[in-house]
Amino acid sequence: MVKVGIIGVGTVGESVANILKENQDVISARAGAMIEVKKGVVRSLDKKRNVEIALTTDVNEVLEDEEIDIVVELMGGVEEAYEVVKKALKNGKAVVTANKALLAYHRYELAELAKDIAFEYEASVAGGIPIINALREGLSANHIESIMGIMNGTCNYMLTKMRDEGAAYDEILKEAQELGYAEADPTFDVGGFDAAHKLLILASIAYGIDAKPEDILIEGIENITQEDIAFAKEFGYEIKLLGIAKKERSEVELRVHAALIKKEEMIAKIDGVMNGISVVGDKVGETLYYGPGAGGDATASAVIANIVDIARSGKSAPMLGFDRPMEGKLTLKESADVHSKYYLRINVNDKTGVLAKLTKLFEHYSISIETMLQRPTQNESANLLISTHLAKESDIQELMDKIASLEFVNSKPVMIRIVS
Amino acid sequence: MVKVGIIGVGTVGESVANILKENQDVISARAGAMIEVKKGVVRSLDKKRNVEIALTTDVNEVLEDEEIDIVVELMGGVEEAYEVVKKALKNGKAVVTANKALLAYHRYELAELAKDIAFEYEASVAGGIPIINALREGLSANHIESIMGIMNGTCNYMLTKMRDEGAAYDEILKEAQELGYAEADPTFDVGGFDAAHKLLILASIAYGIDAKPEDILIEGIENITQEDIAFAKEFGYEIKLLGIAKKERSEVELRVHAALIKKEEMIAKIDGVMNGISVVGDKVGETLYYGPGAGGDATASAVIANIVDIARSGKSAPMLGFDRPMEGKLTLKESADVHSKYYLRINVNDKTGVLAKLTKLFEHYSISIETMLQRPTQNESANLLISTHLAKESDIQELMDKIASLEFVNSKPVMIRIVS
Repeated sequence: MVKVGIIGVGTVGESVANILKENQDVISARAGAMIEVKKGVVRSLDKKRNVEIALTTDVNEVLEDEEIDIVVELMGGVEEAYEVVKKALKNGKAVVTANKALLAYHRYELAELAKDIAFEYEASVAGGIPIINALREGLSANHIESIMGIMNGTCNYMLTKMRDEGAAYDEILKEAQELGYAEADPTFDVGGFDAAHKLLILASIAYGIDAKPEDILIEGIENITQEDIAFAKEFGYEIKLLGIAKKERSEVELRVHAALIKKEEMIAKIDGVMNGISVVGDKVGETLYYGPGAGGDATASAVIANIVDIARSGKSAPMLGFDRPMEGKLTLKESADVHSKYYLRINVNDKTGVLAKLTKLFEHYSISIETMLQRPTQNESANLLISTHLAKESDIQELMDKIASLEFVNSKPVMIRIVS
Repeated sequence: MVKVGIIGVGTVGESVANILKENQDVISARAGAMIEVKKGVVRSLDKKRNVEIALTTDVNEVLEDEEIDIVVELMGGVEEAYEVVKKALKNGKAVVTANKALLAYHRYELAELAKDIAFEYEASVAGGIPIINALREGLSANHIESIMGIMNGTCNYMLTKMRDEGAAYDEILKEAQELGYAEADPTFDVGGFDAAHKLLILASIAYGIDAKPEDILIEGIENITQEDIAFAKEFGYEIKLLGIAKKERSEVELRVHAALIKKEEMIAKIDGVMNGISVVGDKVGETLYYGPGAGGDATASAVIANIVDIARSGKSAPMLGFDRPMEGKLTLKESADVHSKYYLRINVNDKTGVLAKLTKLFEHYSISIETMLQRPTQNESANLLISTHLAKESDIQELMDKIASLEFVNSKPVMIRIVS
């Protein structure tokens, strides 16, 4: 008999408790043990919940209960959750969490505290997809060359809808909010921050890189328009919000942004709210993992997988995949040094000489143009849609600032990176 | 220090030895141990091999070496390999194998012998994709509703080429043989037997079903023509060789055959030599795993992942995922009782009354037609391309026999099952 305490009984917590009961037959046969939720901790006992477990508002009733073997942290937030899981570990309890923000900030301290006890977090990245398991156990023979993932279902849903229905960003966002795919304040999702938290967790397992959200390039999908989608279609791309980790020699670049990606790539074929993560290993080549990135039951599936693992064998691997740091440790590449191909959308007054001035500017920054489309917009202006050959991020940023300052340019130019 | 003996040093064995050396930095940092190949067993010492390990022709030099912790079985075949791994287990050695045929026939006996010692086999299904890991550990909270997989790269390569180049089966097979994607005798691949071995392994982990290849429906891709591919295109399907496991109530159907599948499904989007396996769990929904299903380095990646797992924690889960059988065990469904939609290609003399006679026959067997295309072929004959609504396998088989016996039918009709 394995006893579990759940801290935070919201959608995912309810699913964990209910699935452990509903699928008890198959779970106990696989785990070789009965798994029972002894208690759940909530902020208020007044709220009606869809579970039949004992509830308390006192977190210590779980943390200090000697019968409880595994603490499942589903309270969210960073610092309070950090205190709670530290105390659980100190009291000799294994921990399972779905809390990506906690891990984005404290995973290395936690790995230190969880050297001899299980601390698992499969649900923190891409919900029901067992990507932590795949990366940490399944691909351990490989130097990881790159990770490229659709790690945020809200963004992928919105971009798919914009492509298929031709509607504007604001309209689709409103629809996503009504369907519950986007929050009232959508910034965390559409701004790329959610994906960044997940990327940082994967980067630790792949590369042993200790970085925080503020250390890496994070951009969202707020600037994408139908104009960009039309350009993508014309040149055989899809637009996706991607989390990207890429190793070159001893440096790793980490970035989250909207990206143009060739539609033949498997990752480009993933539509709607689904998540998918492509991992390239030096020996295995590309493998890809696809599935639901959110939802109570899908997330609970990953939480319970961790509980079963712990019931089966306690701690079976180092928390972040490395038993000790590699010699010749990898370091984080400066965002300014990243090389990419770029797509730019520049709205200009449609006058003679404008194109010549612009192209001269590109030449000045040694940025070579691959394709250009000019499309008229209203009020005697035009959109220039330009894709470049490989260029350096800092050069493009300087070019963008320069372009924004030109008197014949009507608004801040928009840039989307091209990843394949 | 973990010492490994490799039995069978062919392409995969060479890759295992070489990757353990080449990626030693990252592998040892992850495993928390140095992993060294102490000896390899080969049939002949004369053959030149691309490895720098000690070789012997005497298998007992590995099986009886007390320093060796893990035996990697890569010799292939069934009975001889079975004797070898039994002896390894008896001598207290953990075993890692890539041998799907061995497991297709002996996995339950082996699980019994490996109750207290690790026996791992990630490489036996879908090469470098960590699907065993995903199914056994990552999805353990779920009742598995279905598994549907492209598990044979040779077939997928050939079907993709037939679609894209419009060439005939025989021509593409020859090309695949020249490229090394198909064997001189291709039956094991194109006949579906390779996929069936893999399906049986997955079915044990998902359902605890003990079945052997001869118990299940196995068909290949030998009868697919450009006519079928044209029909598929017209109605929005792809043609894939699929391994399918599906639960309905207390029964599980297992089958391998060419199938028409809607092109919007993720599994239908997998082209070329790649493998992909879609798993639907009752809680997580659909997850999909994609990657290279063969090749020395990709397969070795999976073999080494198992070695690292064992170095990290010994035995971390029951071999086939179940610690004890579930109550109300699932049973294998008779092939004759499977329900599916079907596509039929019937070559008939193009005479009046033929269609009426045929459709009457469909009615007689209560098989309802969904779509029909008639296409003229040479010599005053025509191909009828017919898709049906849901029907029972035994009814379709009877109908097919009856159709084959009609005097206006020119050759044995061809049937492809429609899975979505």
